[in-house]
Amino acid sequence: MISFSQIAAETNLEIVGRDISISNISDPVKALEDEAIFIIQKKTLNDKYIIRSKAWIINKTLFNPDLSDFLDRTQVSYIVSDDIYETFIKVIQLFHPNSQPAPFIHPSAVISELTVCEGMVHVGPHVTIGAHSHIGSQVTVMANSFIGNNVQLGDNTVIYPNVTIYDNSWIGQNVIIHAGTVIGSDGFGYYKQKDRHKKIPHVGKVVVEDDVEIGSNCTIDRGTLGETRIMRGSKIDNLVQIAHNVIIGQNTLIAAQSGIAGSTTIGDSVTIAGQVGIVGHITVGNNVTIGAQSGVISSIGDGETVSGYPARNHAESLRKEAYIRKIPEILKKLKQKPDK
Amino acid sequence: MISFSQIAAETNLEIVGRDISISNISDPVKALEDEAIFIIQKKTLNDKYIIRSKAWIINKTLFNPDLSDFLDRTQVSYIVSDDIYETFIKVIQLFHPNSQPAPFIHPSAVISELTVCEGMVHVGPHVTIGAHSHIGSQVTVMANSFIGNNVQLGDNTVIYPNVTIYDNSWIGQNVIIHAGTVIGSDGFGYYKQKDRHKKIPHVGKVVVEDDVEIGSNCTIDRGTLGETRIMRGSKIDNLVQIAHNVIIGQNTLIAAQSGIAGSTTIGDSVTIAGQVGIVGHITVGNNVTIGAQSGVISSIGDGETVSGYPARNHAESLRKEAYIRKIPEILKKLKQKPDK
Amino acid sequence: MISFSQIAAETNLEIVGRDISISNISDPVKALEDEAIFIIQKKTLNDKYIIRSKAWIINKTLFNPDLSDFLDRTQVSYIVSDDIYETFIKVIQLFHPNSQPAPFIHPSAVISELTVCEGMVHVGPHVTIGAHSHIGSQVTVMANSFIGNNVQLGDNTVIYPNVTIYDNSWIGQNVIIHAGTVIGSDGFGYYKQKDRHKKIPHVGKVVVEDDVEIGSNCTIDRGTLGETRIMRGSKIDNLVQIAHNVIIGQNTLIAAQSGIAGSTTIGDSVTIAGQVGIVGHITVGNNVTIGAQSGVISSIGDGETVSGYPARNHAESLRKEAYIRKIPEILKKLKQKPDK
Repeated sequence: MISFSQIAAETNLEIVGRDISISNISDPVKALEDEAIFIIQKKTLNDKYIIRSKAWIINKTLFNPDLSDFLDRTQVSYIVSDDIYETFIKVIQLFHPNSQPAPFIHPSAVISELTVCEGMVHVGPHVTIGAHSHIGSQVTVMANSFIGNNVQLGDNTVIYPNVTIYDNSWIGQNVIIHAGTVIGSDGFGYYKQKDRHKKIPHVGKVVVEDDVEIGSNCTIDRGTLGETRIMRGSKIDNLVQIAHNVIIGQNTLIAAQSGIAGSTTIGDSVTIAGQVGIVGHITVGNNVTIGAQSGVISSIGDGETVSGYPARNHAESLRKEAYIRKIPEILKKLKQKPDK
Repeated sequence: MISFSQIAAETNLEIVGRDISISNISDPVKALEDEAIFIIQKKTLNDKYIIRSKAWIINKTLFNPDLSDFLDRTQVSYIVSDDIYETFIKVIQLFHPNSQPAPFIHPSAVISELTVCEGMVHVGPHVTIGAHSHIGSQVTVMANSFIGNNVQLGDNTVIYPNVTIYDNSWIGQNVIIHAGTVIGSDGFGYYKQKDRHKKIPHVGKVVVEDDVEIGSNCTIDRGTLGETRIMRGSKIDNLVQIAHNVIIGQNTLIAAQSGIAGSTTIGDSVTIAGQVGIVGHITVGNNVTIGAQSGVISSIGDGETVSGYPARNHAESLRKEAYIRKIPEILKKLKQKPDK
Repeated sequence: MISFSQIAAETNLEIVGRDISISNISDPVKALEDEAIFIIQKKTLNDKYIIRSKAWIINKTLFNPDLSDFLDRTQVSYIVSDDIYETFIKVIQLFHPNSQPAPFIHPSAVISELTVCEGMVHVGPHVTIGAHSHIGSQVTVMANSFIGNNVQLGDNTVIYPNVTIYDNSWIGQNVIIHAGTVIGSDGFGYYKQKDRHKKIPHVGKVVVEDDVEIGSNCTIDRGTLGETRIMRGSKIDNLVQIAHNVIIGQNTLIAAQSGIAGSTTIGDSVTIAGQVGIVGHITVGNNVTIGAQSGVISSIGDGETVSGYPARNHAESLRKEAYIRKIPEILKKLKQKPDK
């Protein structure tokens, strides 16, 4: 239990109403009386009559005299924050302190003598780490993960279980790679010799820069000769496919099940929704937004918003849908007119 | 070898024709003379002249005097079942008895002393199980799987190899989780601070209720605060993505490569075909059917059948396609008319 | 360092210009002066003025007097190849010799005494291999992979880390299976008993023939009774789903994130682009090409090229898009005409 006043103190905010003991933070509709809740979005206030919690932490942009009256009447204590996500993170950390695993190398882990592990490293059971790799300080490699030869893992990086990192991959600092993801497998490259497909060797590598997070069961192929690169601060959801020699810019978001074909370059601060497909050998500019399930088949300039298949300007995609809906009307009109 | 009469006896059905020794059950067209076959769907009878098997087990709804004559003439012995799938399962089990692995904990498995394993548990090589977890009786955890801290695995549950279950996940009884699946990774949640995406900690959990089956290489994210829940009896195919705080009702089917975005609720007895995408924060009612590759962008009421992108009533989707096919005719008609 | 003349000698080609020491091969635009580059496609020549490399290996079809002049003027040494991919592979192997891992079975691997490993096998740490399996000569099974009971791995096959191969799978010679892939999990088959979905046991198997390559995190389900089969020389990219009882012909290519539903047969030399969905129980002929993100809902004859949803003849798909773009014009024309 943490008192509501202690939460206020830890977040440098003021409490209005009486102090109460808080057992946890919870979803607004499900919270019990002694669980604190966050009101971040306006629609959450639609549920205000059924919320049981007596400890609300409220986004300042939603706070107004009416809400203040309501809270007073229903004897809810509250905190108002003008940086609600920052407050949210701080409060979560109060209840769920970051449990950095203790520095420890499990005796079942198999680590080449030719690899250097810096201080404070945590390596779980059944991990395998090849030769000539370098494991930075405070790195965590969880159970059953495989790190190949000549791999770099930067400081503070966390590798969840059952991850595979092929030889020669370069992973920066503060990177998070979730379970089951594969970094550095061969690109899908063949050439035809008579009827057969002959494999083009892939001898490039994958570079994942600092502060990148990659979800579960993703696949990121190595470059044929050069590199596949995910630049600083980009975040990738689950089951995403990044083909050989793709470059992803900085601070770009890629939602689940999207795929980017070989040698395509994606800019900075791009948002790619779920299940998007992007063909190979094109360029997507900076600050582009791509709608869910879009099929992108040609390059996109900076700042555009596209959707549909083939992906085009979002407004145009909506117009196309509107056009199709007009066909019955056209048919009706044509019937009304006498043929020659 | 099992005699056809023994098969009849074990399934409480009658054999017509002479008894024969059966070596196996097989696909109708590929079966040898001494392999039993199942006639479940009408179209299988199209192949009746090329089927070599002399031992047929026939869905009662397909049986009629003509078929009876044919079988007599070609000296095929047969069994007619009015619960053909039930019979199918019983006969498969005769030839392929369930091989529940022997209770055994492999010495290479690393299990925290703070975790309780009930009786008759099978734990394969190189498994890792964290602290404060509870492994129910007759649970199987196959090789190289990782079970985190504070995880519950209910009785009779089977975890195939290379599965990852993050901390705090709750898995019910008689659950099957196929290889490579990841349960409980962090949801894809960030907020923007200047140009950067700052991670929202995910401290919720995943609940998988009894009798759920989850295919290979799926990803099911934990709730941000609350839970992601797959309710009793639902079945999920391979490579499916379930985002944070999604609720899947009872007895729902989700085919391969579909994805459901955050905080969406899916009802009971819903059928979701392959490669469907469903956006976040919507509700799909009970008994809904969603066609393959649909993109669902708004809530769907009980009992509807939808398809296409954006997903709409299936009949309407078909109409849309028909409209588009009428455009050439419209163009032709317009040409015939003299302009003013 | 390898001299350019040595590269010419090893590939049986002639060097034009002076001999130089080559440090590596690299992408044309990124290469340093002493890195050799390959000019395989015409568009690479667009960059000819910014390429720093002084050692070019050029596809004969792109070579002409103009290029010859340019190379002479800029003092670039070059080799012309009439089998550029063959030359490419040979040169890559000069710089990156195939490092067949040394024959070795890591002591942490758990291999049933009832399994036979032929000579020159490499088995990495934490591998598990079940009973009655057969591991061919010169097979590599990398760390943390699981091979079930009664599995066949043919000679020279390579299994990357964290792969799961279920019981009874049959894998041919010279097969490559990338990390995280699952072979042989149960098909998605249930029948309804009242409201519940009852599992149909899957007792068939998966057969992967010689010279097949399968990418990372794919899922290939076993047959219900019979088999799922990937025939000789086919190549499968990452995150691909192959359902129960699917047959893939010879030398077929399947790009990332595509999925094929149960009991469908795909012909020889088919090309399936990324994110394609193919329904169950249909036949796709030989030499078919299927465009990215297509939804194939009915059988396709030999040699066709299809795209879109529902997938149809590619020319027809393009026409459909053109028709939709005509609607505004139709509406305009109709407005110009006076109503009756």
